[in-house]
Amino acid sequence: MKAGQLFIRPLVRRLRPYVPGEQPKIQGLIKLNTNENPYPPSPKVLAAIKAAVDGRLRLYPDPTAQPLRIKLAKFHWCKHENIIIGNGSDELLAMATRAFVELRRGAVQYFTPSYSLYPVLADIHGARKRPMPLHADFGLPSVAELKRAKQWDFRAALTFVTTPNAPSGRGYSTTQLEDLCRAQKGVVVLDEAYVDFARENAVKLALNYPHVLVARTFSKAYSLCFQRVGYFVGHPELIAALDKIRDSYNVNGLGQIAAVATLDDLSYYRGNFRKIIETRERLSRLLGELGFQLFPSQTNFILTRPPKFSAKDWLRKLREQKILVRWFDAPGLRDFLRLSIGTPAEAWVLVQATKRILT
Amino acid sequence: MKAGQLFIRPLVRRLRPYVPGEQPKIQGLIKLNTNENPYPPSPKVLAAIKAAVDGRLRLYPDPTAQPLRIKLAKFHWCKHENIIIGNGSDELLAMATRAFVELRRGAVQYFTPSYSLYPVLADIHGARKRPMPLHADFGLPSVAELKRAKQWDFRAALTFVTTPNAPSGRGYSTTQLEDLCRAQKGVVVLDEAYVDFARENAVKLALNYPHVLVARTFSKAYSLCFQRVGYFVGHPELIAALDKIRDSYNVNGLGQIAAVATLDDLSYYRGNFRKIIETRERLSRLLGELGFQLFPSQTNFILTRPPKFSAKDWLRKLREQKILVRWFDAPGLRDFLRLSIGTPAEAWVLVQATKRILT
Repeated sequence: MKAGQLFIRPLVRRLRPYVPGEQPKIQGLIKLNTNENPYPPSPKVLAAIKAAVDGRLRLYPDPTAQPLRIKLAKFHWCKHENIIIGNGSDELLAMATRAFVELRRGAVQYFTPSYSLYPVLADIHGARKRPMPLHADFGLPSVAELKRAKQWDFRAALTFVTTPNAPSGRGYSTTQLEDLCRAQKGVVVLDEAYVDFARENAVKLALNYPHVLVARTFSKAYSLCFQRVGYFVGHPELIAALDKIRDSYNVNGLGQIAAVATLDDLSYYRGNFRKIIETRERLSRLLGELGFQLFPSQTNFILTRPPKFSAKDWLRKLREQKILVRWFDAPGLRDFLRLSIGTPAEAWVLVQATKRILT
Repeated sequence: MKAGQLFIRPLVRRLRPYVPGEQPKIQGLIKLNTNENPYPPSPKVLAAIKAAVDGRLRLYPDPTAQPLRIKLAKFHWCKHENIIIGNGSDELLAMATRAFVELRRGAVQYFTPSYSLYPVLADIHGARKRPMPLHADFGLPSVAELKRAKQWDFRAALTFVTTPNAPSGRGYSTTQLEDLCRAQKGVVVLDEAYVDFARENAVKLALNYPHVLVARTFSKAYSLCFQRVGYFVGHPELIAALDKIRDSYNVNGLGQIAAVATLDDLSYYRGNFRKIIETRERLSRLLGELGFQLFPSQTNFILTRPPKFSAKDWLRKLREQKILVRWFDAPGLRDFLRLSIGTPAEAWVLVQATKRILT
């Protein structure tokens, strides 16, 4: 061990960091690897941000992002005490492990495959990990099935459910999620990062149950990845606990302004959701005709098992055509590609490139 | 205990949150309470941010803030591996406790008074707190004095030193800081939030010692509180450890762009430093003539013991005159006010208000 390592906690020394999707700066690249929205923020949002770029940047932002909380409370028919804003929802997911999971004794539970950050957060916190496989078709096991499964813990301090699921895109019904929530004795985070592209959402569970939180983000549906704004909806007691361990000024000011302006222009975004869903359905049909195996998606991406070559080879071959998609070198996922839904033009280029690769 | 509290870790239940300075929205208020810079960011910085407000906001920012790290490496004559960027330096201070301090066994050590966040971070992490009083004139005890003091721990996992000190404004020599660093066996964070207003800085210690980190921020000297950008300079092994527990996209994109543009226009900011130092010296002289007891400051604020009324009364009386300053309800500080240095015009208004209160 090198000398400097002595200063570092053994837990941290052993960590292997989470690997985010690539953010390359290649001219003309079609970037379908990190589920970003292909459409820009609304012109009104851009104007609101620009109008705020002046001498006021010297001042601290609102420490609790109060105007945004109030706006979101109205949006979700709840109180601002039900809302906490994070530096992206990732920050809140990390804070949830720190607020609700006792070190070593406590467990972080999640389904596999789902968001690959959850086990990383458990490791960083020094909590036990309880991964539980989804069905082969990425369906959620029922409570009866979970009761039969030895490795499921109904008393886990914290259970993460990505709904709709990533990376499969599969949606889950609120009824099924409610059954699961009712059976859990610890906190359940329903991670709805992609829910705006789905048929239903489960916010009412966060408002009806004292141990359920819903995670949302402005990144994907609202085209604001750059600005880092996410939030939780949940019981005021859970929200207050998270607030105690929050950095005082955790949400940058222009991000707060952008998010507030977004909620004032929802019709623009609803139009984008429709366009993305349309493109998703068309692209799925065309790829299906080319021999790709597809799972029905309720998100802005699709998971597909490509024909003829391995998924890893497809990653390379598509990259040679300047199209970047996501491949996960993980058990149960190695045979698949995840394609973010871009514009119709990007989908067309993707289909053409696919045809070239196949011939 | 209410039912919902059961989901929350006992450690978190017991926490009392850090109270940041007020951010009131009162028209015409002169805000001298949170050490913000009275001057706006440079026109070039504002232009750079505005130029970036477009469709690119839909994309994730650079996950490691690489362009900013490279720029800072050049600024500090080091490598980008010596730099980590945070969502404000507060985020990095919190990460340091998580990376370097073992739960329960490990101690977070700091001088009092200094930045009131340190004990909060120790509590959130569940670490032992080791506060050590500064001299009555806010001077740093020498290593010989610390050796005689029972409560000082040369093996503390993490020691925070605010240098120049807040809330007193007192500067410390690099020689004295080096003596302290050499004597410590754990990690030392030299928190240089206000160092641009001081005579010297200690970055060379972070580059020469494997256990020393220097914390910097773009908030105060560079008028970017709103945008949340801070950083650590230190040994690549410490930086890599912090990087492992960092949220993947912890620094918002417009903040990164603002910070890079700031480093391209340093002469503008150096002009501001000179103006603030000049105002500080003038204001100190005038307040001194009015009977205020002052400590020489190397920051953009001054600590003063006011005459005639209690400090708490002065807080209220100044607020009635639409001037907001900071009063700390803490042992050893209750008799003082902390005044952030504003523009010359604001200083003039402050002096006039002071005269009115005194007569």
